[in-house]
Amino acid sequence: MSSVPSSSYQPCPVARSVDLIGDRWALLIIRDAFDGTRRFGDFQRGLGMARNILTDRLRKLVDAKILTTRPASDGTAYQEYVLTPKGKSLFPVIVALRQWGEDHLFAAGEPHSLLIDARTGNAIAPMLPLAEDGSELTADNTRVRKLGA
Amino acid sequence: MSSVPSSSYQPCPVARSVDLIGDRWALLIIRDAFDGTRRFGDFQRGLGMARNILTDRLRKLVDAKILTTRPASDGTAYQEYVLTPKGKSLFPVIVALRQWGEDHLFAAGEPHSLLIDARTGNAIAPMLPLAEDGSELTADNTRVRKLGA
Repeated sequence: MSSVPSSSYQPCPVARSVDLIGDRWALLIIRDAFDGTRRFGDFQRGLGMARNILTDRLRKLVDAKILTTRPASDGTAYQEYVLTPKGKSLFPVIVALRQWGEDHLFAAGEPHSLLIDARTGNAIAPMLPLAEDGSELTADNTRVRKLGA
Repeated sequence: MSSVPSSSYQPCPVARSVDLIGDRWALLIIRDAFDGTRRFGDFQRGLGMARNILTDRLRKLVDAKILTTRPASDGTAYQEYVLTPKGKSLFPVIVALRQWGEDHLFAAGEPHSLLIDARTGNAIAPMLPLAEDGSELTADNTRVRKLGA
């Protein structure tokens, strides 16, 4: 990463996000945090990660204020890692990754976990960027306006 | 990555997506492809990547059928890399990364590039997962139903 400018100089919001969370382990830790994982040992077992890599990624996510630490809710001496409001607002990123995976990375009929509305039990609908008239926005009917353009 | 099961055994669609595109360079290549970059040299200059890393990531994206190659549209001997329909359907992933970055990684008033509706010129609205009644879905009112649950 030494060949690219620091994210502080990136006027592209995609680039800044990717600099922070464009990493396999970071994204899986965030996914597990959304699913309720809170403890170092539970992340480690769930993801099969080496301790030193998990320590590094958790520290980066805490530094980025995506996760925060707090004493364990059960009164034990453990520390818990929980999503901050900034971290919780990554939900659409995880949902977008999930929905693309569901659509393209499973064979027809191959079972997978399902994100459901907790109130209705129904699978959630595809999330798409929408125009003001409710039509779907794609790369073909949007464009990026660069700085100064 | 040798300590985790191959993505073929992952029943979680997030994990399968992350195994393919949970990589800083892959995501930036996909972003640039959405913005119209097509040639090796243009990806390389735009991203400041080493040739060998770019070659590796492009090959992986072609193998994953996210990009495909074709002869240059101007009749020269160059090869172009373009998004397949599977690749184009990553648009919500890039939009979600962009919108989270816009909301959380820029200071108030700090300028950034903007994704606009090409027809109206207006910035596009936040993309959120929605319930059947149109209310916002979050990690707090959804849950993941694991296989067999």
